[in-house]
Amino acid sequence: MHVKKQRLLTPGPTPLLPRALHAMMASDIHHRTQDFIQLYPRVLADLKEVYGTQNDVLITVSSGTGAMEAAVSNFFSEGDKVVVLSAGKFGERWADLAKAYRLNAVVLTAEYGQVVSPERVAQALSENPDAKGVFFQASETSTGAAHDVRAIGEIVKQTPALCIVDAITGLGTMPLDIDGWGLDLVIGGSQKAFMIPPGLAFISVSPKAWAQSETARLPRMYFDLKREKKMADKGESAWTPNVSHILALAEALAYIKQLGMAQLVENAQLLARATRAAAVEVGLELFASGSPSSSVTAIKAPAGMDSGEIVKAFRNQFGSIIANGQGTMKGKIFRIAHLGYFDFADLFAVVAELELILHQKGLPVTLGKGVAAVQRTYLEAQSGKQS
Amino acid sequence: MHVKKQRLLTPGPTPLLPRALHAMMASDIHHRTQDFIQLYPRVLADLKEVYGTQNDVLITVSSGTGAMEAAVSNFFSEGDKVVVLSAGKFGERWADLAKAYRLNAVVLTAEYGQVVSPERVAQALSENPDAKGVFFQASETSTGAAHDVRAIGEIVKQTPALCIVDAITGLGTMPLDIDGWGLDLVIGGSQKAFMIPPGLAFISVSPKAWAQSETARLPRMYFDLKREKKMADKGESAWTPNVSHILALAEALAYIKQLGMAQLVENAQLLARATRAAAVEVGLELFASGSPSSSVTAIKAPAGMDSGEIVKAFRNQFGSIIANGQGTMKGKIFRIAHLGYFDFADLFAVVAELELILHQKGLPVTLGKGVAAVQRTYLEAQSGKQS
Repeated sequence: MHVKKQRLLTPGPTPLLPRALHAMMASDIHHRTQDFIQLYPRVLADLKEVYGTQNDVLITVSSGTGAMEAAVSNFFSEGDKVVVLSAGKFGERWADLAKAYRLNAVVLTAEYGQVVSPERVAQALSENPDAKGVFFQASETSTGAAHDVRAIGEIVKQTPALCIVDAITGLGTMPLDIDGWGLDLVIGGSQKAFMIPPGLAFISVSPKAWAQSETARLPRMYFDLKREKKMADKGESAWTPNVSHILALAEALAYIKQLGMAQLVENAQLLARATRAAAVEVGLELFASGSPSSSVTAIKAPAGMDSGEIVKAFRNQFGSIIANGQGTMKGKIFRIAHLGYFDFADLFAVVAELELILHQKGLPVTLGKGVAAVQRTYLEAQSGKQS
Repeated sequence: MHVKKQRLLTPGPTPLLPRALHAMMASDIHHRTQDFIQLYPRVLADLKEVYGTQNDVLITVSSGTGAMEAAVSNFFSEGDKVVVLSAGKFGERWADLAKAYRLNAVVLTAEYGQVVSPERVAQALSENPDAKGVFFQASETSTGAAHDVRAIGEIVKQTPALCIVDAITGLGTMPLDIDGWGLDLVIGGSQKAFMIPPGLAFISVSPKAWAQSETARLPRMYFDLKREKKMADKGESAWTPNVSHILALAEALAYIKQLGMAQLVENAQLLARATRAAAVEVGLELFASGSPSSSVTAIKAPAGMDSGEIVKAFRNQFGSIIANGQGTMKGKIFRIAHLGYFDFADLFAVVAELELILHQKGLPVTLGKGVAAVQRTYLEAQSGKQS
């Protein structure tokens, strides 16, 4: 056994920004004193800046699913008709939430690896003019496929329905013009491109959404966003906040602002492009090749091999933690993430490891060939910047 | 600008073991209470086990140079004759210490990149039978060259002189049979293969050395090893200890024991071998090719290029911090470290980065070729283990 550093390369939790991790040690402050009240509004303002919106952006102490639930419970009433786009495990979660809260959901499904086209959304809305919301994923993490958020947003914008985007792995990996495209509720999570541990979720709320919340009768308390907004305006959180995470988030947002949100997105896009090029170079097939997301790249296991074997070899031989497929995709695909604190050095190593794993499993691989594809992507990006 | 993680890949400080770093947060204990007195003897015992010696092993709160000074001030008197092997910047430090303490030093120099042969040591000792000590580096960090510690130890053992080894970058990167080879004083440092921040040094002391200390008249107080030993036997340190570092060291030693010190050495040797193979593959020349150390590999800059340019490109383009040459070697070589918490993933990335840097500077490099050399070394090591 040799030294193997554990490297978390999954689509959430993602690698932690060291300065954010270290900042968590300063948690010995009280959340109803000036210590916190000086911190929190600054974090909310930075979060809004990074979101790039004029809408309110609120924080919930929960996982992303908590904010997804808030997006249902704050804006709808029992029996409301909604349209749900389901293209994977997280699309199914929207459907489950709609069911749990007894909404009347029209579910548009797409095969795993595919997405729901804007045309189908337009058609569903014209067939269901009483729909009060359209729920979908910006990036479907389970399959590595991305919806056309802009086109869908612009369709929904012309209707009374709210456009509700789970952007938990979309934020920081794809451009999202929240105000321009009419995205009424946009949900994020701390353990994604925000580079900090799980524990916080975010949600932006448009004026159109606030207006609809006035008549929403679904029961809510912990995730009551109106209450949260009222407290946020006073520089506090409604319930006891996860102080350590707010401290970490302050550092991570400062880092993202310094880098630039557009550059963070470009970074993920570049690493995703390089990963796709490397996968093809080592003889593997991409899963969501039609509309690949830049948050995570899903790659099919070689014929006759369980993708779990590849995931296990990454961990046992190199200490690299990558993701298997989820749900029905388990054993069929493996997933390499790019969202947040990932860089080219991570990718050089992961691709070199993948080549070795395939070679050791008897597949014909020219060592270094996939790495060279990543290197060429790096050079192309550099020359693009210089020209 | 994209995401660039800062990676410390220098021969000290070295990459930190995460669990050791996290342990430093528990420093709110008092060093004269049971909290510390239960910890310290366990750390000393583990350190002795990792050193692999029956000799006493003591800790000083200092950099390695402090323990080097202790190796002079505790065992010699003004005017004592000693032999100093100087093959680089750290050999010169032994000579400086001998001079500062007014010892009568016979200095055997070797050109940078070369080492002093055991034969020259034998001859010097036969010409100077009154020599009371032989000082040298196990691994000369400034040039990446390693002395033949075993051969030198076995020569010195047969004389009254003490064999004094600066193993600051030698421990954990080369086999050191302290008791078998007669190494009387062996010095280590926390920020090397011990994977924790700078702040602690270590020194093992043989019975032969303790005996010589009885007549040593050089002044000493902070580094009085007899006092330190007396306190260590009671489970304490002579002066206020660096509690955070002792906590970190406890974790690092637990990790090294779990891995095995022999495996840690093999890890460094394997990474060094892979780095040498990669350097040759990308068309570069090794600096200390005759007796390369496994702690750090020194590589010559291409003809006409300042090595500082390469060091700078590593930092600016990839966030990788590698070392320039030191002293007269500055600008001529660059150094990639392997000591401690380094793994193959680090090396895949560093070599891919080196290829890109050379390519961008107009050198003829086949992308991926150096990485493939590292991959082949990995495969050879794996097949060696299986056969």
